[in-house]
Amino acid sequence: MDIKFLQSLIQPAPTKIAMIIMDGLGGLPLEPYGKTELETACTPNLDALAAQSALGLTVPVGPGISPGSGPGHLAIFGYDPLQYKIGRGALEALGIDFDLGSEDVAARGNFCTVDEAGVLTDRRAGRICTDASKELVEMLGTIKIEGVETFVKTVKEHRFAFIMRGPDLGDALTETDPQKIGVPAFPVCALKPDSEKTARLVNQFIEKARWLLADKHPANMILLRGFAKSPEMPKYQELFGLRAAAIALHGMYRGVAKLVGMQALKVDGDTLADEFAALEKHWDEFDFFYLHVKKTDTSGEDGDFMRKVQAIEEVDALMPRLLALKPDVVIVSGDHSSPAALKSHSWHPVPTLLFSHYVRADGIAEFGERACARGSLGVLPAKDVMPIALANAQRIAKYGA
Amino acid sequence: MDIKFLQSLIQPAPTKIAMIIMDGLGGLPLEPYGKTELETACTPNLDALAAQSALGLTVPVGPGISPGSGPGHLAIFGYDPLQYKIGRGALEALGIDFDLGSEDVAARGNFCTVDEAGVLTDRRAGRICTDASKELVEMLGTIKIEGVETFVKTVKEHRFAFIMRGPDLGDALTETDPQKIGVPAFPVCALKPDSEKTARLVNQFIEKARWLLADKHPANMILLRGFAKSPEMPKYQELFGLRAAAIALHGMYRGVAKLVGMQALKVDGDTLADEFAALEKHWDEFDFFYLHVKKTDTSGEDGDFMRKVQAIEEVDALMPRLLALKPDVVIVSGDHSSPAALKSHSWHPVPTLLFSHYVRADGIAEFGERACARGSLGVLPAKDVMPIALANAQRIAKYGA
Repeated sequence: MDIKFLQSLIQPAPTKIAMIIMDGLGGLPLEPYGKTELETACTPNLDALAAQSALGLTVPVGPGISPGSGPGHLAIFGYDPLQYKIGRGALEALGIDFDLGSEDVAARGNFCTVDEAGVLTDRRAGRICTDASKELVEMLGTIKIEGVETFVKTVKEHRFAFIMRGPDLGDALTETDPQKIGVPAFPVCALKPDSEKTARLVNQFIEKARWLLADKHPANMILLRGFAKSPEMPKYQELFGLRAAAIALHGMYRGVAKLVGMQALKVDGDTLADEFAALEKHWDEFDFFYLHVKKTDTSGEDGDFMRKVQAIEEVDALMPRLLALKPDVVIVSGDHSSPAALKSHSWHPVPTLLFSHYVRADGIAEFGERACARGSLGVLPAKDVMPIALANAQRIAKYGA
Repeated sequence: MDIKFLQSLIQPAPTKIAMIIMDGLGGLPLEPYGKTELETACTPNLDALAAQSALGLTVPVGPGISPGSGPGHLAIFGYDPLQYKIGRGALEALGIDFDLGSEDVAARGNFCTVDEAGVLTDRRAGRICTDASKELVEMLGTIKIEGVETFVKTVKEHRFAFIMRGPDLGDALTETDPQKIGVPAFPVCALKPDSEKTARLVNQFIEKARWLLADKHPANMILLRGFAKSPEMPKYQELFGLRAAAIALHGMYRGVAKLVGMQALKVDGDTLADEFAALEKHWDEFDFFYLHVKKTDTSGEDGDFMRKVQAIEEVDALMPRLLALKPDVVIVSGDHSSPAALKSHSWHPVPTLLFSHYVRADGIAEFGERACARGSLGVLPAKDVMPIALANAQRIAKYGA
C-alpha cells in the first residue's frame, strides 16, 4: 500500500498517539530453550498493557535483513526504507544534531596521514584523540570557498562531518578514500552532470585543507566519503496531519525524526526519566510523540544480556507516567533487534504492541517475542504499523463506498 | 501474485466452491476483555466446520484501511481493490440493480433548489420524499439527447442515478455540485479529450432538466457527480473457469458480483432462508456460489451488538443446508469488519474459514476473531483467499516443472 494512498484518506481527529521505541528491542536466548532479554525482564506494566493490545512481530526492511538505525526508524515511522534512503553523509550530519538543509551535501570525513609524495600511510591518522581533532576541525572551518558555505564538525577521534551549503549542489560524487594505503587519495569526481560543480568546489576545499594541514602530521590530510543530500521525505504534518514531536537523547535519532517533520523537543537532563518528563511537559502541544530508548541497543551491542534486561525494566517502570496521560494509541516496539547473543543489530522481527480502545485485543498478558508471535497483528512489515495506529486513532477515512 | 499469472494455471475440475459472505462480519468486544459479536454468538455448526478448516484473518484493502462494500467484495472475490476501482456513479447504478453496460457512464444525481438567478439555495431540495422524487424522475426520463440513450432511476428521497448509454463516451468529467450554496451549479467539463463529447451531451441533458423542472420548486434543478464507467474487470468464467452465481437480496451486491461475471440468481422471498433455498435450487447449474448476508452489517452499523449476534446465529442455523449439498470448498468470511462498538465499517481484519477435504485443518473448533488469529492462514490479504480456494478445489495446475 502506497503512502500517498494512505495520505489521501487522512482525516483530522482529536486523538494522540505515543510511540515508544526501544532501540534494538528484539533479542535471543543465551541458551537453547532459554528466554530472550524481553522475556527475562520483569515487566508488569507492559504485560498488563499487552493484555489489552494487539501484538505482532515487525519486519523493518525485509526478511533476513539486519537494518541500521536509519532504515529501522523510517520503517516504524511508516515509510518504505527501500524507497526512502538516508545516505551515510547525511546520517553522519544528523548524528551530530547538525540541522541539515534540503540543499546541503554532507559527507563523512576523517583525518589521515600522507607522506611527502601524497601517498596514504594511515587512513585514520593514528586515531588522534577527539581534542586534537577539534583543533584541526576549527582550522578547516576557516576555509572559504566562493559561492558556498562549508561546515566541518567534530564527530569523534579522527572522524568529522563535512557539509557544503549552496545553490545547485549535487551528491552524485565519488569518494576520495581509496580504502587502502600506499596510493594517493582520489579526487572527487561527479557521477552525474548535476554534481560537476559540487565536485569542483569539494576538490577546492580538499586542496585548501591539504595546505592548511601540511605540518600537522599525523593528521596532515583528509578523506571524504558517503556524499549525500538529505532525502526528500513527505513530512508527518502533510502526510498524516500530525503535529509530531521527537524525544531522544542522541543526535542521530533526533535527526531522523526531523527528516520526517517531527519537532525534536529539548530534554532537561540525560536520563530516561528526563525523556518521560519532556513527554509530560509537552503533552498538550502535539498529536504524536516518538520517544527513543537508547540503552536497549547499546547493551545488546555490548553483548550484556542483563544490562539489556535492566534497560527494558527501566522503561516498564516509567510506563505508568505515559499511561497517566491517557494516550489514545500506544505503540511499543523497536527499530530492529540487537540480541546480546549476537552483539550486533540483527534481522529478527521486533516485538510490537499496539494499544487503543478500538484495538481487537489478543488477551495475551505478556510482552515478549514468543507472545508477540501469537498475536493477531501477525508478522508484518514495520511500515504497516503507522497505518494501523492512525486507524485506531480514527484518523483514516473509509475507502470507497 | 498477479491475477493473470493465476489465470494461466487454471485447470477444470468437477468441484464446487461456496462462499458465504457475512457483510461486516468482524467485530469488537463492548468491554475490555469481552467477546466480539462472532465470539458471543452460539454457532455450533460453524464451530464444527472450523475444526475441519484452515482459519485466518483477511485484510481487505490494506493495514488500517476501512473498506467500503465495493472494494471489500472485490478483494474477497480475488481482485486487488487498489487496481480495480468502482467509481461512485457506477456503484450507485449497481446499487439499484441497473444493468450497467461496459459503454455506459453513470453518475449520482440529486434534486436541488436554485433561485431565479440560478444560484443554489439547497443542495438537497429539502430532501423531498421518494414518491415526489419518482414523479420528477419520470419527467427527466422523457428527455431525449441525440445519439445517446439516457436513464434516470430513483434511489431514495432526493437522490437518483443517471446513466448515459452510447458510443464513445468517457467518464473523465468534473462534477456539477459546488459542494456549497450561494453559487450556481457548475457545468460538466471534460478532463480528457475522450470525454469532451460526453461533457457536451451531459450539459445538454442538464439544460433540458432545468427547463423541465423550472416550476417544480423546491426540486427545480439537478446536480450530477461521481461520473464513472463500469470498471473493466476480467470475469470469473475467463479468469477462473468458473460458472459463478450470486445470491444477494440487495442490488449493490448483485451489481458487484455481476461486474466480475457472476450471474445474479433470483431469490424467491427476502429472507436468509430464501437465499439458501436459491442456493439449493441452482446447485447443479454452477461451480461457484457467492451468498451475501446483509444483516450482520446493518446491525453492526446500527451499533446493535445483540442483533448482529442473532444475525450470525441465523447463518449458523442454515449452514447444514449448505453442507448437505456437499460443497468441495466452503469459504465463510466477510467483506470487512463492522463492529457494533464503532457503528461503522472498520479496518479490523476479518475472520475467515476455509474448508475442504484437502485443507490442512487447524483443529481449532471455534469460529471467532481470536480463534482465527491462531489459524494457519495467518493474517493475509483478502485477495489471496480465492487462489487458495481454487487450489483446494483442484482447479490450479502445477507451476513449473
